[in-house]
Amino acid sequence: MTSHSLALLGFGNVGRALAGLLQQKRGELQLRYGIEWKITGVASRRLGWLADPAGLDVSSLLAGAVPAPNLHRSSLHYGGVSKSPISNYQDWLSASHATVLFENTSLDPQAGQPALDYIRAALGRGTHVVTANKGPLVHGYHELRDLAARNHVRFLFEATVMGGAPIFSLFREALPAVELRRFRGILNSTTNLMLSEMEAGLTFEQAVKSAQDLGIAETDPSADVDGWDAAVKVSALATVLMDVRLSPQQVQRVGIRDLSPRAVQAARAEGRPYKLVCQAERGAAGQVSASVLPQQIALDDPLASVRGASSIITFELDTLHGLTLKEEEPNAATTAYGPFADFITIAS
Amino acid sequence: MTSHSLALLGFGNVGRALAGLLQQKRGELQLRYGIEWKITGVASRRLGWLADPAGLDVSSLLAGAVPAPNLHRSSLHYGGVSKSPISNYQDWLSASHATVLFENTSLDPQAGQPALDYIRAALGRGTHVVTANKGPLVHGYHELRDLAARNHVRFLFEATVMGGAPIFSLFREALPAVELRRFRGILNSTTNLMLSEMEAGLTFEQAVKSAQDLGIAETDPSADVDGWDAAVKVSALATVLMDVRLSPQQVQRVGIRDLSPRAVQAARAEGRPYKLVCQAERGAAGQVSASVLPQQIALDDPLASVRGASSIITFELDTLHGLTLKEEEPNAATTAYGPFADFITIAS
Repeated sequence: MTSHSLALLGFGNVGRALAGLLQQKRGELQLRYGIEWKITGVASRRLGWLADPAGLDVSSLLAGAVPAPNLHRSSLHYGGVSKSPISNYQDWLSASHATVLFENTSLDPQAGQPALDYIRAALGRGTHVVTANKGPLVHGYHELRDLAARNHVRFLFEATVMGGAPIFSLFREALPAVELRRFRGILNSTTNLMLSEMEAGLTFEQAVKSAQDLGIAETDPSADVDGWDAAVKVSALATVLMDVRLSPQQVQRVGIRDLSPRAVQAARAEGRPYKLVCQAERGAAGQVSASVLPQQIALDDPLASVRGASSIITFELDTLHGLTLKEEEPNAATTAYGPFADFITIAS
Repeated sequence: MTSHSLALLGFGNVGRALAGLLQQKRGELQLRYGIEWKITGVASRRLGWLADPAGLDVSSLLAGAVPAPNLHRSSLHYGGVSKSPISNYQDWLSASHATVLFENTSLDPQAGQPALDYIRAALGRGTHVVTANKGPLVHGYHELRDLAARNHVRFLFEATVMGGAPIFSLFREALPAVELRRFRGILNSTTNLMLSEMEAGLTFEQAVKSAQDLGIAETDPSADVDGWDAAVKVSALATVLMDVRLSPQQVQRVGIRDLSPRAVQAARAEGRPYKLVCQAERGAAGQVSASVLPQQIALDDPLASVRGASSIITFELDTLHGLTLKEEEPNAATTAYGPFADFITIAS
């Protein structure tokens, strides 16, 4: 039996869904994998820096309440060893005695901060890190991977692309010694849903609102609409799976802001609908070029069957011409499976 | 650096492609995985029982020649320690000093023999086994799994379903702690290709010949045409991934023999083409029911986009509503990746 203390940095939809999934699968983790866990740290804007090495009450956390401090341990405000309120990340991480940090803060596509510093600090003190955040991955992958190796811990990030579907672990564990030559897919839910809605007659603004109402798009939809989210995913896949340094800024990027509903409807009517197509390819000289572009595709293209918030990706390998993965209708609960599976990998 | 002696039982298309792939990736296996290997045994109807613990010459084997005996080791007919020709499986396996057996003999859907006995014997003497043969898997999975565990070796079978695409390793390594509720797909290349050909105007017999000319269908196509190959694959997936005992005989099975080209063409013309659909589902009481049936499907069903020899499968998990894998245009070379990847798993 192995026992882990978990610290959750960020406690939004994915963080809460992760805590729920861990709770739901607690028995199976114990019996089948020999894994025990407690949540010893939670930090968010609303909750502040909560830590208790004896374990916070998961049910209270999930119910949205701030769990009561463990007075029995004479920790006045949390932190176990500390008697004063925790006011910063370093103290919080120490006070939680975390063996695994789940980093789920918001995306900064340009520099991956402050998540990059958070992860660096955790790996540096010998804490495993699981992130659902693409920013630190695309801006720090090689450094963080090497830092983790030097400290004999893992740095895992399954949920960053197609949250509930395994991509990185598929390549790491089930596709050894393959060479990835090219990939092509639809990786951004908001724009795919918006294109469907615009085909059905909605204006651009109505389509944005529809994606927001479903909890898919952010209040500021520009990261999706302008192709940044997709470009960051392309960058993440190329960086990890093709082992190159390709920043999101180096991905040729056109969003869907300039597509009128009329053009989208006309394209569908002529049987060549618009999709925001992500792709990357290794050239003859070894360099990788990548793009995110609205493209009209044929109806019998596998990408054409991807509706709403679903995603798809086709990999061209030296060992197999085409291997396609499709994730249907993901949500926060399915995305939480990525960090959950990463945790099992760490603890097994 | 770990070193392995490999014995190949069966040296047809897949066996030869495996030897070629091992040879092609020799440098990467050494440098990246620390794995060295030599082929110390090959057995087939044409070659007989060849073994040399010092290693057989792979280039000669691939060129179709019987490699010269290693006179230097004074092994008169092969076998290293033996001076007389090897005439049976047990002696061959001993003489090869194999650490890994690759079992690639032909499929017996009814009982999985003699492959089942071959594998049992190898595991029993502490030899890892990799098979591309569905017969022993569906007729002996639980026994062979437990026998392997008792002898501290692995029993792996990635190539048995969708050869070049990882299914079993995906669930084993990248989808921990999920519950598989249902799957549905197209898993037999020959019948899928034949249906396409019949839509294009070929007779049943011409369609069989077309699949044979492409090297996909056997001389006797009945295992494919009558749905046995598909039923065995459904049985294999249910047995391993849903952990039930479900023999191929328990899969409700209708082949495509009674579908006339006229019916197939009419179905395509009305926009609801025929596909040989494989599926399995866990019922409320925990039992699994499975079928292989020709069905008319909608054009926007992901199965409709699967042409020729390609395969597709959609998994419904407790953690994700739909996860689809598609393998495009497999052949013997891509199928060899399954055993190759299994070998890396064993040796790593």
